This record gives sequence, structure tokens and C-alpha cells, in this order.
Amino acid sequence: MMAGGRTEVLGRAAFTCILTLCFVCAHVTALKSQLFTRLGGLPYSSEPPISYQTLYFEQKIDHFGFLEDGTFKQRYLVADKHWQKPGGPILFYTGNEGDVTWFCNNTGFMWEIAEELGAMLVFAEHRYYGESLPFGQDSYSDSKHLNYLTSEQALADFAVLILNLKKTLPGAQNSPVIAIGGSYGGMLSAWFRMKYPNVVVGALAASAPIWQFPGMVPCGDFYKIVTQDFAKSGQNCDASIRKSWKAINNVSSNASGLQWLSEEFSLCSPLKSGVDVVVFKNWLQETWVNLAMVDYPYEANFLQPLPRWPIQVVCKYLGFDSTVSDKQLLHGVSQAAKVYYNYTGSSSCLNISQTATSSLGILGWYYQACTEMVMPMCTDGVQDMFEPEEWNFQAFSDECNSMFGVRPRADWAGTVFGGKDIASHSNIIFSNGGLDPWSAGGVTHNMTDSLVSILIPDGAHHLDLRYSNDLDPPSVRAARATEMKYFREWIKRAQKDNSY
Amino acid sequence: MMAGGRTEVLGRAAFTCILTLCFVCAHVTALKSQLFTRLGGLPYSSEPPISYQTLYFEQKIDHFGFLEDGTFKQRYLVADKHWQKPGGPILFYTGNEGDVTWFCNNTGFMWEIAEELGAMLVFAEHRYYGESLPFGQDSYSDSKHLNYLTSEQALADFAVLILNLKKTLPGAQNSPVIAIGGSYGGMLSAWFRMKYPNVVVGALAASAPIWQFPGMVPCGDFYKIVTQDFAKSGQNCDASIRKSWKAINNVSSNASGLQWLSEEFSLCSPLKSGVDVVVFKNWLQETWVNLAMVDYPYEANFLQPLPRWPIQVVCKYLGFDSTVSDKQLLHGVSQAAKVYYNYTGSSSCLNISQTATSSLGILGWYYQACTEMVMPMCTDGVQDMFEPEEWNFQAFSDECNSMFGVRPRADWAGTVFGGKDIASHSNIIFSNGGLDPWSAGGVTHNMTDSLVSILIPDGAHHLDLRYSNDLDPPSVRAARATEMKYFREWIKRAQKDNSY
Repeated sequence: MMAGGRTEVLGRAAFTCILTLCFVCAHVTALKSQLFTRLGGLPYSSEPPISYQTLYFEQKIDHFGFLEDGTFKQRYLVADKHWQKPGGPILFYTGNEGDVTWFCNNTGFMWEIAEELGAMLVFAEHRYYGESLPFGQDSYSDSKHLNYLTSEQALADFAVLILNLKKTLPGAQNSPVIAIGGSYGGMLSAWFRMKYPNVVVGALAASAPIWQFPGMVPCGDFYKIVTQDFAKSGQNCDASIRKSWKAINNVSSNASGLQWLSEEFSLCSPLKSGVDVVVFKNWLQETWVNLAMVDYPYEANFLQPLPRWPIQVVCKYLGFDSTVSDKQLLHGVSQAAKVYYNYTGSSSCLNISQTATSSLGILGWYYQACTEMVMPMCTDGVQDMFEPEEWNFQAFSDECNSMFGVRPRADWAGTVFGGKDIASHSNIIFSNGGLDPWSAGGVTHNMTDSLVSILIPDGAHHLDLRYSNDLDPPSVRAARATEMKYFREWIKRAQKDNSY
Repeated sequence: MMAGGRTEVLGRAAFTCILTLCFVCAHVTALKSQLFTRLGGLPYSSEPPISYQTLYFEQKIDHFGFLEDGTFKQRYLVADKHWQKPGGPILFYTGNEGDVTWFCNNTGFMWEIAEELGAMLVFAEHRYYGESLPFGQDSYSDSKHLNYLTSEQALADFAVLILNLKKTLPGAQNSPVIAIGGSYGGMLSAWFRMKYPNVVVGALAASAPIWQFPGMVPCGDFYKIVTQDFAKSGQNCDASIRKSWKAINNVSSNASGLQWLSEEFSLCSPLKSGVDVVVFKNWLQETWVNLAMVDYPYEANFLQPLPRWPIQVVCKYLGFDSTVSDKQLLHGVSQAAKVYYNYTGSSSCLNISQTATSSLGILGWYYQACTEMVMPMCTDGVQDMFEPEEWNFQAFSDECNSMFGVRPRADWAGTVFGGKDIASHSNIIFSNGGLDPWSAGGVTHNMTDSLVSILIPDGAHHLDLRYSNDLDPPSVRAARATEMKYFREWIKRAQKDNSY
């Protein structure tokens, strides 16, 4: 497990970063939005208990150079209860930017299909997250130690780990391996199949915005989808939020207004200045984004404990017509925010430095966003409900430079991972939820017979990877069935190839 | 052009390395054999004059990390005389371990097909060779500066360069690019298509031993093919060479024998000790290997100026029966060696520290062999005509460590480039010559409809890439025609895809 002390340090550092960004630069939103699955919760207790072994694999710190020959221990979790050896398949979760146990707990789909496929489950932790720290406590100490935090290194870790497992685990030699991941983990699983088709026979890339890179999709689509989710969840819901920014500016223009706002939102620390108001607005914006990501059809605890269809619940407080006063409107907004932050009634106050539960990997993801994972975002206030904000790469780069001493390379991800020119690859399922803002950067059409898209119109962020639920919409049930169909095909093909 | 001073330093350093290896360790042969196309000559003057622009592109020193943000100038050569823009194809030579102008001059095939395809030719220099030195004169100063000399970095250079050319060259935006390379350059072109199918529509990998890695092919096959070349080029030719090692040992056991040997071979520096004899035998062994590589059907100057079918000429001096005395045999061997080293009659003496003309990139290739390009070689003296020598990875690794402070990673190339599991890739032609010892590690059967093998039974090392010649065997003419057929198909398909 992650050392408490270190977590705190990182937490504070990340918090400082967020604030720095807020103060210094207008497009914090873009960066913050990129922390798309950094936070989470445990599955509800009604879900079946899971059991796995926690293991560690010695990985090279640098796969792409030979000067640094050190190693670190990569954590991975193995569940082989249902594995039919020899040759039974391995479902391999390509860990994201966080503690792998959390992804393990939040990927019920894998646990539910293991028996039917006779599969072993492996959840591999992404380097620099959770316990898999290349330089231990020093891993985040400076850009020198952070230098090996890249997607390419993480993919190499996965490849080396899998080939080692197949070599050393009795019965695994001919086991076909399928990569599975969601969000950034989904991007990794897609890229893993593209770059290491010798290691995995196919990949499920759930809610993987592999095209959320410069020049691939319009920068405004992400926030448009957030807005649409609110627009269709209640009368005037998006319009009220669109109006709220001006209302906040108006009300916060004097000391008594600031005090009113702080009390109305039950803030833990009262707003004191214009800078605080910027942070406050960013916090609210991130709140709406998070709600769009977790707008699940049943009560769940992913980023926060929430009711079913949480945006509908939120929108009940935002159905104002054009005659609403600023304070009436903001009262509604505060009630709405409390649906997200205090559904269980256990929060005594709201903390605008947090938008979700225990934060994991924030600083690491910042670093990745500041290097390879350059994902342009923008708002115009017309097609979306947010304050207008253009994408400004230069300003973003300058922030990154002051934060980490590195500069992002805008074109690199497209070059190395193929951008839109991926049609020559095979056996990748891209699933996307219609409610999920990250679908803006996802592959939402079939590219070839074996690069297929699955749309889940009623789904939010990788709903298909979650445990099944009685309230699941038919679209996600169908998605999972289709995914299983492909898995079975890939496995069958691989086992046939091996039998020669 | 390459600075003279630097070349000398590298030359001396490499020379020292070779000697060090000879003295320290028994399997220098393996390492030396890996220098498979490091050396060369200019094309004969009868070949058509070629003309190109020499250009430089600013590349990141490190594509896989962000701490080192420096750049260097990568040299590339462009010939666009026949280019039909917009949209005409680009034939892109993926430079090997040496000065790119030399590869440019020795790849007549590209020059001969440019007009028919309306193609632009681009020859890109591999980092750390020729003029493309990431740290200028310091590039080889230590393992820290050598750290960015890897195939992955070189492939990334090629990808970034091509995408930049397509973006900035008017008319190139929709130009399909085909990667072409021979030997290590052929490995690169195959891997380039595997890793960056978004950048190149296909690849011709000529004489590319992508399977000459641990566990993929028997370590003895390479020298078996060398032996076969001699066996079929003259009566008792291989048997005489097989016997020669013992004869050398016998004759060199005393001072007068050493002197006789030195005089018989017209050595520039007489042999003085047992260590010198080891170097001498390795030099002879490399001579036979080189002859196998350049056993072309016409007079040519690739590694040395040579007659047509040089092994047949060599074997005229080696047709001894079992009654031959040691000195008779070695007299024949010396005559044979002089076919290789003094065909033009211009050498006053033979230098056992050299086996070919102006050496390029030796040290760089040593470093690559000592890191990623681990190519096991072995001999048994039975199925081949050499002294028995097992492959000893540990000893090899120890040498590398003492030489560069790095250790080879035996499994990495197989992991990252797929080893034998490459069937999911597409549009790669693997051409191999039956006389070429490197075909031992090549892909010599069709893997799929679009991963095809072309065999040239009468061909030595990437004969198909050379200028056509009246003495070309039909097999190489057919090979080139097949290659052109695939090129046209790939281009047509790409242009069709672009027209949507």
C-alpha cells in the first residue's frame, strides 16, 4: 500500500499545483479535466467479495536506455480461481494513473466474466502510481526522477511482465492475453495492442479518448457533452449553470457577497478574494464535469457516493426561468453541488480544494499531461454552459515548465500512437458512453472489421467495466455481450494458432 | 561530411575495442560478425551519377523522456527529380549504422525505380552515425552520451522526420511513404512499419535478420551458411579452411613459424605472440564471412573491390586433398585472402586490424550489440568450417560492461519488436539471399498475404537493393519485379484511401 506520509506530501503538492495553476493561468480547467479517473471509492458492499494475490515484479526503470539499469518493484494483482490451465486466457488490466487496487475493485466486469472464460485476472499497476514507485519516496522529487513516467515505459512494463508470466507460470505459456482498461487505462490497452500485438491478442479500450490530442477533435466537444447531459436532465438545467458564473461574479464583488456565498455553499474556508472566487468557479466546473462522468443509472460510489442518475437529481435544483435573481439561482446551485458533495449527509462543510474522495496520482497525471498527454480543451459559453476559455498551448507549456521544468510535446502522442491513422491495427474494441464527456475524444465508429466501436448511449464513463446491476440499461448489457463475443473469438483464434 | 579528426578517434577507439575483445574473450567473432554492413565503398563509376540535396532536421535527443530536451541535427538526403507532386510516393531509406551517403550510393534499386513510381527519394541518417551526432564530438565519450543510441530512438527520428516532411513540403501531405532498408537498415524498415504503420504504408526489409536474437534461430546457422558458400564454390574449399586453423596453430607454435606466417600473408605487422595469432585467426574468419556477404555475380566494390563470384576465385587456391602439408595449405589460404584484400594489386601489405575499407560506425554498432542487438552466434567446427566456439551470454555481457558500462538485455529486442509473433502486422517484404549468412536470421517464408518473403537463391547480402547489372541472376530480377508489384499495390491502396 502507499505510504501515508508520501501520499500526504503528494496531496499537498498537487493541491499547490492546482492553486498555482488557477492563479497563474486561465486554462487550469483543461489540466484539471484531464485527471479523469484519478479518484474513486470502494464498490458497494452488495457486490461480491473479490480475492486476489498481491505480487511484485522487478522492472527496469528505463526500458529505452541502458545507462539507468536500476529496477523497481511493480505491483500486480492476480486472481486465478477460475483459470483453466493450461492455456486458459489471461485478462490483463492495464493500470491507469492510480492505485491498482482501486481499479481492480472498480472493474467488476472482469470479475464477472472470469469463470465463463476460464480466465486468470491480472491487474498491473502503472509505474509511478500506488506502490509502483521507481525511486520510492523520491519518485516525485524532481524532473530527473520523473523522467521515466511515460506511457511508453508503462506499456513496456506490461509487455515485460506478461512475457515473464507466460514464461514462468506453469500452464500460461500458450495463454492468450487480452488487455482491458478504462479511461487512460483504456488508452493504454488500445496502444498496447497496437504496439505489442505479440503480447496481447486483443484489447478492450473502454471510454478511451485516444483522439483527445491536438488537431484530432475539436477542443470544445468535451464540455459540449457535459452541457448536453445537464440540458437533457432537467428543464433549464444547463441554462441555469451557464448563468451562474455571472451571478457568482456579481454577488462576489463585495465582502458581504463573498460571505453570503461562503455560507450558502457551506464552504469550509470562506472566500476572501477574487482569486478565491476563481478557484471556487473552477471547483464548481469540475463538479459538473465529474457528475457527467459518473451519471450512472444506479446509486454508486465512484468519485463520490451518489444517487442514481445524479444529474437528474442535481437538475431538480436548477429549473429556473429567466426571472430568477442571482441569489435565488446560486441557492439552487449550492443545493445542486451538495447532491454531489453531501449525498450521504456526512459532510459538515464543502472543501473547494477537493472534488472527489481520496486523491490518487494527481501529481503524476499532471506530469503526464505536461509531457505526452496534451489534451486540448476549450469552452465558448454558447455551445457549452461554461465561461469562455480558449485552448492556449503556449501558456500551458509555460505552466508545465514552471511546475516540472519540462515542456509538453504537442505532436508526440499522435506520432507515436498513430492519431487517426490506426486502421492497420486489429482486434481493438473501443466502447464509449453517450453521456461521457470523454467520448468526445473516443473512437465512436467502426474503423475496420476488427477495430470496432461500441456505443452505449445511456452510459457514462466506462459503465461497461463496472459490475452489472439490475438497473443497467439494455445498451450496456448489449455492450458487454458484444465484448464477450469478441473475447471468445480472439481466444479461439489464438488457441487454434497455438495448436499448430 | 564527417569530421576527419573525429573519425580517427572513433576508428582508433573501435580498433582498441576489437583487440580488447579478441584478447579478453573467445566470442569476439559473434560481436565482430554483427558489424554486418559497417563498411563499404563507392559505386563503380559505370553506375549513373546521382544527385541529391543534403538537408538537416532538428530532432529531439530523447523521444522517450522529457528531461533531456536538447536537439541535434539529423542529416537526410532528398532527391525529388522524378517526384510527381502532389501525392507522389516517397521512398524512405531507413539509415543503418553508418554514413548515410554510403547507403545512398549503395542502394541503386531506389534510384532506378524513382522515375517509374514518380517517387521522391529520402535517405535518412541513423543517429550517432555519419554526421548525425546528438552530442557532436562528445557523442561517443561515455555511456551517458551514448544513452540515446537505440533502435527505438532511431525509429522515432524517422517518424518525426517523415511527418514533418509531409506537413511542410508542398505536395507531400498525401504522399504514401514506403520504408526501404538493407541489413540492420532492413530490420529498421520492418520494425518501422510494425511500430509506425501510421507513417509508412509498407516496408522492404532486405537481408534483415530480425530473428537473429536469442531463442529465435539456432546460433550456428549463420556460420553454416558461410561454410556452404565455400563448399559449393570449389572442391574441398570448406575442408581446407576447416583444416587451416589447426595448421595455423601448428606453424605458429614457434618463432620461425610466426615469421613464416607473417611473411607468407604479407602482414604489415609481423605476428609476435599467441595473442597476435588469435587476432589473426579472427581476422581470417571475418574475411570468409565478409566474402560470403559480398559474393556477388559481378565485379563490385562493397566491402572491398572484388571480382565476380569472389568465393569461386578464392576457392581456386583452396582445392587441396588430405595430403596437403600445413605450409602448403597456408600458402593457399594466403593466396585466397589476397583475393579479398588485394584484388586491385594496390595493397603493399595486409593489415589484420581491418577487414574492409574505411570503417564507419564500428563503435556505435558495438554499443548497439552490447545493449539491444544481442545476436547469438556459435560454431562447432563440424557443420561449419570454423573453430568451435559456444555462445556465452554472460561473458559477452561482462565484456560489454567493461567496454561501455552497460549490459545487454537479451530479451528486449524480442519483446519490443515481436520476435516470431509478428503475423498481425502487414505490408512488409522480407527479401533474403540464399548465399547471405544473414538469411539465417531472416524471415524466409510467407507469414501472411502481406508479410511476404522473397528468396534470391543466388543472392548475397541485399543484392536486390543494388543497381541492376547485366550479370544479375534471374532470381534477383524477379525479386525486384515482385517488390515493385507490392510497392505499386501499397501506393494505389493509399491513394485510394486518401481520395475519400
